[in-house]
Amino acid sequence: MVFLREDERLDYLLAEDLRIIQSPSVFAFSLDAVLLAKFAYLPIQKGNIIDLCTGNGVIPLLISTRTKANITGVEIQERLYDMAKRSIEYNKLDHKIQIIHGDLKEMPGKLGYNQFDVVTCNPPYFPVTERTIINESEYFAIARHELYCTLEDVVKVSSQLVKPGGKAAFVHRPDRLLEILEWMKKYKLEPKRLQFVYPKSGKEANTILIEGIKDGKPSLKILPPLFVYQNNGDYTEEVKKILYGDK
Amino acid sequence: MVFLREDERLDYLLAEDLRIIQSPSVFAFSLDAVLLAKFAYLPIQKGNIIDLCTGNGVIPLLISTRTKANITGVEIQERLYDMAKRSIEYNKLDHKIQIIHGDLKEMPGKLGYNQFDVVTCNPPYFPVTERTIINESEYFAIARHELYCTLEDVVKVSSQLVKPGGKAAFVHRPDRLLEILEWMKKYKLEPKRLQFVYPKSGKEANTILIEGIKDGKPSLKILPPLFVYQNNGDYTEEVKKILYGDK
Repeated sequence: MVFLREDERLDYLLAEDLRIIQSPSVFAFSLDAVLLAKFAYLPIQKGNIIDLCTGNGVIPLLISTRTKANITGVEIQERLYDMAKRSIEYNKLDHKIQIIHGDLKEMPGKLGYNQFDVVTCNPPYFPVTERTIINESEYFAIARHELYCTLEDVVKVSSQLVKPGGKAAFVHRPDRLLEILEWMKKYKLEPKRLQFVYPKSGKEANTILIEGIKDGKPSLKILPPLFVYQNNGDYTEEVKKILYGDK
Repeated sequence: MVFLREDERLDYLLAEDLRIIQSPSVFAFSLDAVLLAKFAYLPIQKGNIIDLCTGNGVIPLLISTRTKANITGVEIQERLYDMAKRSIEYNKLDHKIQIIHGDLKEMPGKLGYNQFDVVTCNPPYFPVTERTIINESEYFAIARHELYCTLEDVVKVSSQLVKPGGKAAFVHRPDRLLEILEWMKKYKLEPKRLQFVYPKSGKEANTILIEGIKDGKPSLKILPPLFVYQNNGDYTEEVKKILYGDK
């Protein structure tokens, strides 16, 4: 049993036999989060993983199927935190996943420095400038715009949380690539794996997946490109497999 | 008529009805140079273009078919300079292409600062360290290793030669991507277009093509990926078209 508020739905996370609470007026996870959950290297048997900007907890839920490690999700919006918490309970994953309601910038002080094997984050993509006009509800505005945390905050805090030798994985937009590389270098998360996601063959990339190793040695690999749609508009086989599994 | 030395051959540049002098013991152009010649934006009607590390002049020859601009090639190795010069003469392109025998680091002083609309360069890929063991003839060693110019030299000189608003295009290896981005930022060649070349589907990229604009505004595009080989070992249609034209 699960308590659903207002227009919330209990959606399937298809590949994983899990369900997740979503609401069209508040938040629904994106393909980017699913791709990040698949992209990130995880310790299999044990360890500590933290997902920043966790939203309705989609990344903790997805990665829980690939690891026995403890997973922490951090979300600043109380409404999303509450959805994430109820989804974790519904899936009986409370023993493995904890969700914290709070500001990611306070997490190193609260949870400790150099404590995590892996950090993941699908952060807000859009910078806020004086000219930013945000035509969205507050929920979406906070999830999409850097109102409560900047890209620098995300990279800096990830570096503070992760152990030397541990990994931090992010998803972002190509127009922020140079910036994310700069912050990763600055905060000692050496970029090691970079993958570009293209909406379809012949189009420019619209998403990047990047992983760094804390205090790692320079050696960057560019993974094979990932295409989302076929020319007929269907998902590619690769993305279908990520979304729906091998069934 | 053309004078061929020793084991030199007069090879076809297939897509362009041009011929080029090559020698297996000295230098043969690579696919990377052909891809860079295709990748670089060129002024069509007029202007000044310079190709650094021009080798046997393959890039000036190839781009001469796409532009009416004046093209200068610079090569430090006298033997290669001589091959380039004879190829230009053979193709009756002396009115359009000049080859200079010299060190690229001296070109801003000799040719002037901020004089070129476009700079291209397929530089040596491999750094030289105390532990570098070079098992190659001097010709190949100089073309492949940073013996006479470093990546920083190449980017710095390119920036000095190009006009504000002009473009510099390079080909390099993915493991030098972070470094080339750093130098481009430092020397005010804002990265604008980045393309990854993959040997085949499912493999990591082994080549990058990158173009910056002098004093440009930040906005990086990741172009569609380029695959070189099909699974059966043949070139892909896209690469065939670049190499052999639409014939």
